[in-house]
Amino acid sequence: MAKKKRDIRREGIMEEAAKLFKQKGFGGTSMRDLAEQVGMDAATMYHYIKSKDEILKTICFDIAHTYVTQLAEMEASPFSYTQKLKALVRLHIHLMTSKGAEVSVANNDWKFLSEEALQEFKGLRNQYERSLASIIEQGIKAGELKDVHPSVALFTLLSAVRWVELWWKPDRGVTTQELEDSILAILFSGLENTKP
Amino acid sequence: MAKKKRDIRREGIMEEAAKLFKQKGFGGTSMRDLAEQVGMDAATMYHYIKSKDEILKTICFDIAHTYVTQLAEMEASPFSYTQKLKALVRLHIHLMTSKGAEVSVANNDWKFLSEEALQEFKGLRNQYERSLASIIEQGIKAGELKDVHPSVALFTLLSAVRWVELWWKPDRGVTTQELEDSILAILFSGLENTKP
Repeated sequence: MAKKKRDIRREGIMEEAAKLFKQKGFGGTSMRDLAEQVGMDAATMYHYIKSKDEILKTICFDIAHTYVTQLAEMEASPFSYTQKLKALVRLHIHLMTSKGAEVSVANNDWKFLSEEALQEFKGLRNQYERSLASIIEQGIKAGELKDVHPSVALFTLLSAVRWVELWWKPDRGVTTQELEDSILAILFSGLENTKP
Repeated sequence: MAKKKRDIRREGIMEEAAKLFKQKGFGGTSMRDLAEQVGMDAATMYHYIKSKDEILKTICFDIAHTYVTQLAEMEASPFSYTQKLKALVRLHIHLMTSKGAEVSVANNDWKFLSEEALQEFKGLRNQYERSLASIIEQGIKAGELKDVHPSVALFTLLSAVRWVELWWKPDRGVTTQELEDSILAILFSGLENTKP
């Protein structure tokens, strides 16, 4: 029970930290800023977290593990290559609308990770991109996907959703469902209307 | 004749400056770095350009005017909305493979423009985005394009090509023609293969 309360506090600190890092950058955020933001004195806050480095590492790897876990699930699934790819692109969009600050930190501030964590993070990212590229290659071979250069397809898909993190807010007049459906429709069926 | 030689020198300085800004950032590049890079002493270089601010302004507005000019040509053309949009997305990709450093500066370092130039640049960019959104809206109304939220379509198109500036090199095993054709195919016809 005590453990659970501690975890909730810790998660709250992580959330506020992600917002501050997104807004002011990792380098521009001090532990004093963070303590102020969460309304604790620094000594109390250090009861829950060790350092700014630990916070950054936790945020980056939480996001990375979400991607890697979903990828593994898809790889083990009986779905078509297209369905696997669609589910993963949908996850990217979903994470940006549900955990926008954390995704921003994992996309932009990962370079401030300590050396060991940095190597591990880059390794995970490269492995993830290679696995996605492999799904694309197999989808092309199977005739499910158009015969384009796999890297071009991979980076077009990943890049095409990046703006969501900067743009999306609940008051944009687009639900998260519409947002995901529209982007998926453009990327997989094309913006051009083929219906008569 | 003398004028022409001066212009060529000036353009050479602009090109090297764009490369340095892309590599080290606008803030991280000194006029001394630039003089060294172009192999002139500072006094000679100041014969061709006035300041770092002038260089940044020239690079950003050259790119902005290329977009605006092409947009005006397309708006005045008899092409379909889809064709206009395709030509403009193609221009974005083409500029990233032909003037990658300049596009990077216009995308990332515009925020360092002096106040007046900054307002003008933002105005041009907003106007450009509004015009593109309007082409998309008209294309949807005409039934040429899928019925998606116009802002979602606009930002998906613009974002989908942004990776090219970071990735593309002549030795990637993809010609610029293949690159443009593949990205256009994905965005307008979809990555999924609809052929039997």
